[in-house]
Amino acid sequence: MIEVEVKAKVKNFSDIKEKLIEMGAQKIKDEYQSDTYFNAHDRDFGVTDEALRIREIPENSGKRFILTYKGAKMDDLSKTRQEVEVDITDSENMALILINLGFKKAAVVTKDRSIYHLDEFIITLDTVHGAGIYVEIETDVEDGKDTTDSLNQIFEIYKTMGIEDGFERRSYLELLGAPK
Amino acid sequence: MIEVEVKAKVKNFSDIKEKLIEMGAQKIKDEYQSDTYFNAHDRDFGVTDEALRIREIPENSGKRFILTYKGAKMDDLSKTRQEVEVDITDSENMALILINLGFKKAAVVTKDRSIYHLDEFIITLDTVHGAGIYVEIETDVEDGKDTTDSLNQIFEIYKTMGIEDGFERRSYLELLGAPK
Repeated sequence: MIEVEVKAKVKNFSDIKEKLIEMGAQKIKDEYQSDTYFNAHDRDFGVTDEALRIREIPENSGKRFILTYKGAKMDDLSKTRQEVEVDITDSENMALILINLGFKKAAVVTKDRSIYHLDEFIITLDTVHGAGIYVEIETDVEDGKDTTDSLNQIFEIYKTMGIEDGFERRSYLELLGAPK
Repeated sequence: MIEVEVKAKVKNFSDIKEKLIEMGAQKIKDEYQSDTYFNAHDRDFGVTDEALRIREIPENSGKRFILTYKGAKMDDLSKTRQEVEVDITDSENMALILINLGFKKAAVVTKDRSIYHLDEFIITLDTVHGAGIYVEIETDVEDGKDTTDSLNQIFEIYKTMGIEDGFERRSYLELLGAPK
């Protein structure tokens, strides 16, 4: 799956939340996300522009755990890239497997995320601990399909929201000063 | 976790099944297991004696998927080794993540396994497609704890079952002629 994604740094969320309601976006949920990033021993994901992480999300009485691989970004405008995810039952054992395979824990990124849906787009308002507040708009496109239309639509949504600058291609990991 | 395990090639299961009943072992279930093994690009798990696999087990209407890493064997007698497992929700995406990280599909091993419990030991009767029939006895020991007692008890169980030879340290993968 290709994740077509554009991120923008913003000053506050209040105007944006109003716009989202006007546009008919649906608030889905708020969640706290703790992402542990790993790096390889034989290549630097900061250089190859890949990412490997275990995400922990507190849910009801337990936690949801997701292992995610992200490939290198595919254009110069956005954060569009291959993304593969799998839910796992145990983050500690998953980390132990990765470490045994030669990966190293690189950094932890935590954020509070509010998630909205607008048609096939996911709009998130992220308060990234230590890195500020951001809006992300993303949608999924099948492998091999053209991403131009989706990308144009994302920039249209930003425009409607009154956001025309502050676009940011660096990951939260990079913005926090850690290797990607 | 350390998996203390001894495997033996046997001629038939009928006497063994009788012995298991006499010994008070409890039959837990029969299951079909399909194991896809992966190898690394930077080292040969056949040489380092590690293993990385995705196991698929049909269950009810769906499938259970388990990712397992096994470290090198820790003695010359048995298959005792570090084992780390995590349940995953999607074997295809897990395989795709591993392949993106540089691992390669090495082989698929399929077997029919009958699982018995006897105290803290798991006894399995395995019909391995293409490699014959085997009994495995295993138990888990915490990392860092001594495994001698468990190993002696496993050989005692084998003796009670009337099995005193045919012990096999090679994995099913090796027995099938594929790299470990």
